[in-house]
Amino acid sequence: MKILLTVLDGLGGLPVKYGKTELELAKTPNLDRLATESALGLHIPVDVGITPGSGPGHLGLFGYDPLEVEIGRGVLEALGLGLEVRETDIAVRGNYATVRYEGNTPVVVDRRAGRIPTEENRRITQRLSEEISEIDGARIILAPGMEHRFALILRFESPLPPGSEKIRDTDPQKTGESPLPAVGENEDAEKIARIVNRFIEQASEILRDESQANYILLRGFSRRPDIPTFKERFNLKSCCIATYPMYRGLASLAGMEIIKPEGWSIEDEISSLEKEWDNYEFFFLHIKKTDSYGEDGNWKGKVSVIEEFDSLLPKILELKPDVLAITGDHSTPSVLKGHSWHPVPLLIKSPYVLGGTCERFTERECLKGEIGIIPAKKIMNLLRANALLIPKFGA
Amino acid sequence: MKILLTVLDGLGGLPVKYGKTELELAKTPNLDRLATESALGLHIPVDVGITPGSGPGHLGLFGYDPLEVEIGRGVLEALGLGLEVRETDIAVRGNYATVRYEGNTPVVVDRRAGRIPTEENRRITQRLSEEISEIDGARIILAPGMEHRFALILRFESPLPPGSEKIRDTDPQKTGESPLPAVGENEDAEKIARIVNRFIEQASEILRDESQANYILLRGFSRRPDIPTFKERFNLKSCCIATYPMYRGLASLAGMEIIKPEGWSIEDEISSLEKEWDNYEFFFLHIKKTDSYGEDGNWKGKVSVIEEFDSLLPKILELKPDVLAITGDHSTPSVLKGHSWHPVPLLIKSPYVLGGTCERFTERECLKGEIGIIPAKKIMNLLRANALLIPKFGA
Repeated sequence: MKILLTVLDGLGGLPVKYGKTELELAKTPNLDRLATESALGLHIPVDVGITPGSGPGHLGLFGYDPLEVEIGRGVLEALGLGLEVRETDIAVRGNYATVRYEGNTPVVVDRRAGRIPTEENRRITQRLSEEISEIDGARIILAPGMEHRFALILRFESPLPPGSEKIRDTDPQKTGESPLPAVGENEDAEKIARIVNRFIEQASEILRDESQANYILLRGFSRRPDIPTFKERFNLKSCCIATYPMYRGLASLAGMEIIKPEGWSIEDEISSLEKEWDNYEFFFLHIKKTDSYGEDGNWKGKVSVIEEFDSLLPKILELKPDVLAITGDHSTPSVLKGHSWHPVPLLIKSPYVLGGTCERFTERECLKGEIGIIPAKKIMNLLRANALLIPKFGA
Repeated sequence: MKILLTVLDGLGGLPVKYGKTELELAKTPNLDRLATESALGLHIPVDVGITPGSGPGHLGLFGYDPLEVEIGRGVLEALGLGLEVRETDIAVRGNYATVRYEGNTPVVVDRRAGRIPTEENRRITQRLSEEISEIDGARIILAPGMEHRFALILRFESPLPPGSEKIRDTDPQKTGESPLPAVGENEDAEKIARIVNRFIEQASEILRDESQANYILLRGFSRRPDIPTFKERFNLKSCCIATYPMYRGLASLAGMEIIKPEGWSIEDEISSLEKEWDNYEFFFLHIKKTDSYGEDGNWKGKVSVIEEFDSLLPKILELKPDVLAITGDHSTPSVLKGHSWHPVPLLIKSPYVLGGTCERFTERECLKGEIGIIPAKKIMNLLRANALLIPKFGA
């Protein structure tokens, strides 16, 4: 039994030219053919009118309720920068900042340290990593991000008590003010806050001679959500094929095994899929660039990624998945240059669909489809049903 | 940012002639044009198969869950008769009734006092108001309704304890029986019930010489629901433009400011809208007559109101609202001569819709639209999303 969930990130769109959306403008002969013989519809990632971030968007697709399971900012940042987040970890989102000192008191001059170049960030993060590896039993793990951003993980020896991540941001959110101390909302959190404050102290000493990035501000203290894995919930041996760390990270939260394609192209990802086809029952294939171009407002780019995917679709079909889904985690209309609340086109191909309702795989055609408009969190049920994996309910 | 929610009361209908509904029979060139470039769909006011009253119908449109927020009968009656209902008030629905006396015991002969003419009601209510203004610290406020109906408010000096409105109806619901005393279900309610009984006593003394309306029966003791205002929930400076007191009252419960048009026509209401356009961010425009004609079973009348609205639509469009919604609070099919459970057509125009899915604004065309069929309580989210007012959920 093979189920393949293909996610074209930010797939849904709005009219950009001649009243047509990116999906409508794209020449997609293979998707068109598939659409005529598949079940089509749309899904609502979180709720009507709600624009999801990547975390909630994927949680829904993986069958979790994104309103119930929260992925903290720190965890998402860490996953996005390729760090593993364990249950013994506190994950934090960091900014390099510029401060001036009034006596010994730091005052924030630039919360983003002038958006230092990413290479500068790498150098500084490397420096901190080398000089600080452990504080009071907490391993210190750092990863550089883009410009001024980085991720911090405090890794402990044993699982942490509930609520121990409830630590206030140290970012005062404006210039001219002093960074705030980390303060825990309870005793367990306070213990960790003390370690955090010691880390800030040591880091600011080390960075004191930097001209721009001479301080750190921390936000979004959070922990890996304690959710049942894909295997536990669905008894499916599952894997994720994705080029970007964040999506691999999100899949790892759901307990999927992670396959790293050899290159960055969709073709590379499909090569990985072919290679791993015999090893798993459930495949989450993530394609990023539809979203990236949407965020840039580059509808032509988005159209070209859709067309590229279409040209490679025959390779996927040759694998003969029992159930094939193609959708997005949310819409990213080029005209909005960002994620949006609009329902996302959804296609499901299996031997057990009506088909014959839609002529193409587009936002407007999907409105005519047999799936209707459903919450994202129900898609996993539909895929498992089409794989004949859900037993009858009641007698 | 301007959001305009236009409610044509009881908008939805059923086939009345040539198999067509009121919306389908109406000639609406302006709505038709708008429909082609808008997001369309239908909303379910309360739940599938549930026929809503005006209270729940509007609560849903205002983004409250009509199954959670209850508006008592007394409050609705008082609002409908133009009374303000404060948090220090107990609102009650009253009937003038006819009793005969057996000794000193009144026995109900007619629960509606022969449906006395409304002018009679006004005279009698005036008389009571003049003779009873206060009982044991409660101000007595009366408003005449149609025929035998009136509203009573007991206004106290300070907010009332929770549950103090739990007072049993005094209407025995049949003739040949004595009116029941007001009885409180708890100590606080019992205190108020004693005031109510004193009011009934005094009123029946005053009315003793009336030939028909010589007694009062009270029902639906209730209080203003304690709900967060529109401003608190959505941070929108909002107003209501409505000709009928009940809808102004419902809007005031949600904390909207009330604009009273100078006349009774749709044109008068739109004049008010134009005048107030710079003063608010959210406008609730209520048009009553679609419902009134529906309730009368007068489908031609309902068609004519729809056509009248259509002819005035260009004036609304000239204001260039950022987000424009047109819908009803429920359906009132002329063939049913009353409210019904049928989903209500919904149109949303903003720069961020697909459009191109429907050719007209009718029940059947809306089924093809991009919104699908959604609960009424989600509409406010969709309007705010289209106004780009809802921040992204999660990262």
